[in-house]
Amino acid sequence: LDPLHRCVPGSTIGILGGGQLGRMLSMAAAQLGLRTLVYDPQRHGPGFDVATEHMTGRYDDEERLAEFAARVSVVTYEFENVPAETASFLAARRPVRPGPRALAVSQDRLAEKAFFREHGCPVGPFAPVESPDDIRAAIADLGLPAVLKTRRLGYDGKGQAVLRQPDDVDAAWAAIGARSNTTVSAILEAFVPFTTEISVLIARDLDGATAVYDVTENVHREGILRQSSVPAGVTLPVMEVAQGVARSIAGALDYVGVLGVEFFVVGDRVLVNEIAPRVHNSGHWTVDACACSQFENHIRAVAGWPLGPATRHSDATMTNLIGDDWLNWPEILAERGACLHLYGKGQARPGRKMGHVIRLT
Amino acid sequence: LDPLHRCVPGSTIGILGGGQLGRMLSMAAAQLGLRTLVYDPQRHGPGFDVATEHMTGRYDDEERLAEFAARVSVVTYEFENVPAETASFLAARRPVRPGPRALAVSQDRLAEKAFFREHGCPVGPFAPVESPDDIRAAIADLGLPAVLKTRRLGYDGKGQAVLRQPDDVDAAWAAIGARSNTTVSAILEAFVPFTTEISVLIARDLDGATAVYDVTENVHREGILRQSSVPAGVTLPVMEVAQGVARSIAGALDYVGVLGVEFFVVGDRVLVNEIAPRVHNSGHWTVDACACSQFENHIRAVAGWPLGPATRHSDATMTNLIGDDWLNWPEILAERGACLHLYGKGQARPGRKMGHVIRLT
Repeated sequence: LDPLHRCVPGSTIGILGGGQLGRMLSMAAAQLGLRTLVYDPQRHGPGFDVATEHMTGRYDDEERLAEFAARVSVVTYEFENVPAETASFLAARRPVRPGPRALAVSQDRLAEKAFFREHGCPVGPFAPVESPDDIRAAIADLGLPAVLKTRRLGYDGKGQAVLRQPDDVDAAWAAIGARSNTTVSAILEAFVPFTTEISVLIARDLDGATAVYDVTENVHREGILRQSSVPAGVTLPVMEVAQGVARSIAGALDYVGVLGVEFFVVGDRVLVNEIAPRVHNSGHWTVDACACSQFENHIRAVAGWPLGPATRHSDATMTNLIGDDWLNWPEILAERGACLHLYGKGQARPGRKMGHVIRLT
Repeated sequence: LDPLHRCVPGSTIGILGGGQLGRMLSMAAAQLGLRTLVYDPQRHGPGFDVATEHMTGRYDDEERLAEFAARVSVVTYEFENVPAETASFLAARRPVRPGPRALAVSQDRLAEKAFFREHGCPVGPFAPVESPDDIRAAIADLGLPAVLKTRRLGYDGKGQAVLRQPDDVDAAWAAIGARSNTTVSAILEAFVPFTTEISVLIARDLDGATAVYDVTENVHREGILRQSSVPAGVTLPVMEVAQGVARSIAGALDYVGVLGVEFFVVGDRVLVNEIAPRVHNSGHWTVDACACSQFENHIRAVAGWPLGPATRHSDATMTNLIGDDWLNWPEILAERGACLHLYGKGQARPGRKMGHVIRLT
């Protein structure tokens, strides 16, 4: 390793999290002649199957974490809820990329929105709330409908509740897991009457160079991403604003790796919704529609290597295979131009992402 | 498994050979939700890093082979010199794809040429030889220059010698490893004054459906493939004849998997040179220039699944990184449109393939 901790081929990338993103990161690393060590609290995981090596350990087991750090050149992660203590324990031993700042901002919805505002990124109205009374006060300001979210640890629609009328306050408070008489750190967001949801995947390297993938249009259902398509059905100015916001955020975080930025489009306005400091489900199409995928660019950046181009050679639609959707694998395999990706998970459960299919058009 | 032994996702594909081809086959299998078990006599290998599991064992260790067979649903291989006894031992326990016939034909240069002739495929003049006297007699018929090759176990230019004048006979006999007073099964081939070398990669599934990749133009040096490009610089009729010959051979072998067929082009004539019953170095460009690579189609066929299209979305040039070539990895990473593939091999030796780069154009 040089002073900037750039890896050489044969180095080992440590990956926190052995899910499907860790799996796809491991494959991208292997293509580049890099080894991977996946760390996960579970004994099995989709990422374990393809990583060079894997180890099981809790995120607060300092002995295991120290062993993990000793065996890798650099650390990255597949999910944004890596505990801050884990990240700082590891960062004292090896470079952690993306850095702790990106984790801190993305783990806390209130800090995230404040960060957007501070850096001039357009956001919808929001207010911090810690009790049903706070919510009632905030509603007076933001109006209804509104969305109540925990500040931390929500994903795929969990930890969220929609309020449509004033009577919904107590039910929403209960729905996010709060007891009526306790204080909970939450955020109330004005409902944004968006016409389209889009996202931008941006890669940024150690030297600050960026590669920005084409804007993706996303469809969520029950809070879970169902489908992503490129090109997005939005205007060129909307695309340019979104990509510009993504560049600003990555720069402000001095980010290293791939960053996902999600937006609401309201007419010709673009509002940033949230960021994910990692490869992102809405960027899976880059594997089959680009010469250099989000996974390869994340690994390149994390290794301290230059980025590949984000150029796209085909239009594409990605559809998640959720729950029993994957049982259609024979039909998908037989479909011309459909690229099947399965994660090797043993058991399908409702809402569980089992794979995805990219259709090139 | 159904009667035709079609795999379901989660099944394990057994791969004989843990080199770079086994590595890339394992990655293609992982994408499709299949597991892999790589078997190799060596304790380390590029394929071990990405396979779900690996085991070390000799090709004549029946106990290890039986264990290997018991752990997999179907067997394939990354190299054509799998001993016939190994293949038949395994075939008695699990489907071996491609089948034993393809191995038998491709392991013996004389049987291979006879097979081509028998199936009406155009081949250059050749004669079986077992002694220096045989060679002298064959030269009278075939003329000079000519190429002397062992019938078995040559690759990357090994086990070959060129004869330019009658005096070269004894030196050539020695060069292929034969003693002057022993009998060796060899073949003498008339030198083909080719203008271009091309190859065709064809995939064929259990039901006999085929997917044929675009004709590739190849450049060898010192018997080792250096570069492959698509489209090939040959006429459309030449391409069509080559693809037709590849289809005939795959059909005649009732082949399952990806087959590489190498040709010499002499003016507007096409002569088949040899086949490889496996994924092939000259097809590596399909990973970056096609939605469905040769590796994915090999795995699909071996699993008993339908093939993906062989459609190409970009022009491409593949350059092998041989010996110390791979040390240019920083320049290759920085080159726009270059896709770097490294095999994770520890030590570079002269002539050793350490990786390759695909340049999309």
